[in-house]
Amino acid sequence: MLEEAGCDLLWLPQPAEFYPAGFATTVSVKGVSDRWEGEARPGHFDGVATVVAKLLCAVRPDIALFGEKDFQQLAVIRRMALDLQLGIEVLGVPTVRDEDGLALSSRNAYLSPEERSNAVELPRALNEAAEAISSGLLVSDALAAAKARLTRAGFSRIDYVALVNALTLEPLEQAGGPMRLIAAALIGRTRLIDNIAVGL
Amino acid sequence: MLEEAGCDLLWLPQPAEFYPAGFATTVSVKGVSDRWEGEARPGHFDGVATVVAKLLCAVRPDIALFGEKDFQQLAVIRRMALDLQLGIEVLGVPTVRDEDGLALSSRNAYLSPEERSNAVELPRALNEAAEAISSGLLVSDALAAAKARLTRAGFSRIDYVALVNALTLEPLEQAGGPMRLIAAALIGRTRLIDNIAVGL
Repeated sequence: MLEEAGCDLLWLPQPAEFYPAGFATTVSVKGVSDRWEGEARPGHFDGVATVVAKLLCAVRPDIALFGEKDFQQLAVIRRMALDLQLGIEVLGVPTVRDEDGLALSSRNAYLSPEERSNAVELPRALNEAAEAISSGLLVSDALAAAKARLTRAGFSRIDYVALVNALTLEPLEQAGGPMRLIAAALIGRTRLIDNIAVGL
Repeated sequence: MLEEAGCDLLWLPQPAEFYPAGFATTVSVKGVSDRWEGEARPGHFDGVATVVAKLLCAVRPDIALFGEKDFQQLAVIRRMALDLQLGIEVLGVPTVRDEDGLALSSRNAYLSPEERSNAVELPRALNEAAEAISSGLLVSDALAAAKARLTRAGFSRIDYVALVNALTLEPLEQAGGPMRLIAAALIGRTRLIDNIAVGL
């Protein structure tokens, strides 16, 4: 697949090589790691920041690309690269979506046909809320409407639907600055996440 | 002083530039940071590892030199540079000593003339213990003798006198492998640290 995509060079370190005996260093990014996925998976972003710091220090690229699908991960990596002065431009790559709008994810394979059909309400609810916020609707009303839409679509648990600062991931009660609408919700036993940009 | 020493280039970042608003990243090295000075100053080595990681990432030198006087700090930095794959050779610089053997330290200025005169027993006790261990004396006996010597010299508190693995800083009950004899003790109100290599 990489050859077909025009990849010239692949470095694929094995765990034993990458984390040799005695490995003891952790890179943590507070603030941007704390909420949302960080709350759902304690310690997860320490692991992400550590492995990405290692990769970036070892390879020393000029540019590094990370998918926007894991938007908080992208924000954590941006902050870490800036703080450690890695001199690397961290670029987000737009989320790839199915024809109906559902973000591609390895987790989609776990969805039953009915769940898959309802799952599309996640990007639709986000798009609707983003348009509502862009056109001046109260943020709290737009978020409440998105949550109600997910519940109607059969999502069994909504972990969060939030408007956040796109750099710090802090929740915003009012629109302004660089914004992102982020969500995580459970359909059946599958937890889906998605996010979209919000303009003004 | 740097010009006289032949320094070609100095980078002297100011705190506000080095830790701008929003700075959120911490580099921690467990194990080697935990005991000794890490126990005496919780969080200290996180600050050391973070600032040195930043400096090394920003400058990307081939070689970085750190004094052996802060031996645990040197071990923490070695581990961090290895773990993050910085590709930098971390070299220890032998401790500079006064004519009588006392390690140079900014803290020596706090010593009264009598304390300064007694302080030299710290390197002497370490040398004596190192020679005893090298010649096969029981490690526990050699360490006990060094502590007794410090107490006789008027040291009011001995935080530790220990034989450790020079890479992991783990205490050794028997001589073997790369070793270091490390000590911290209080004379008057001044806390002094010192360390020396131990051969076999």
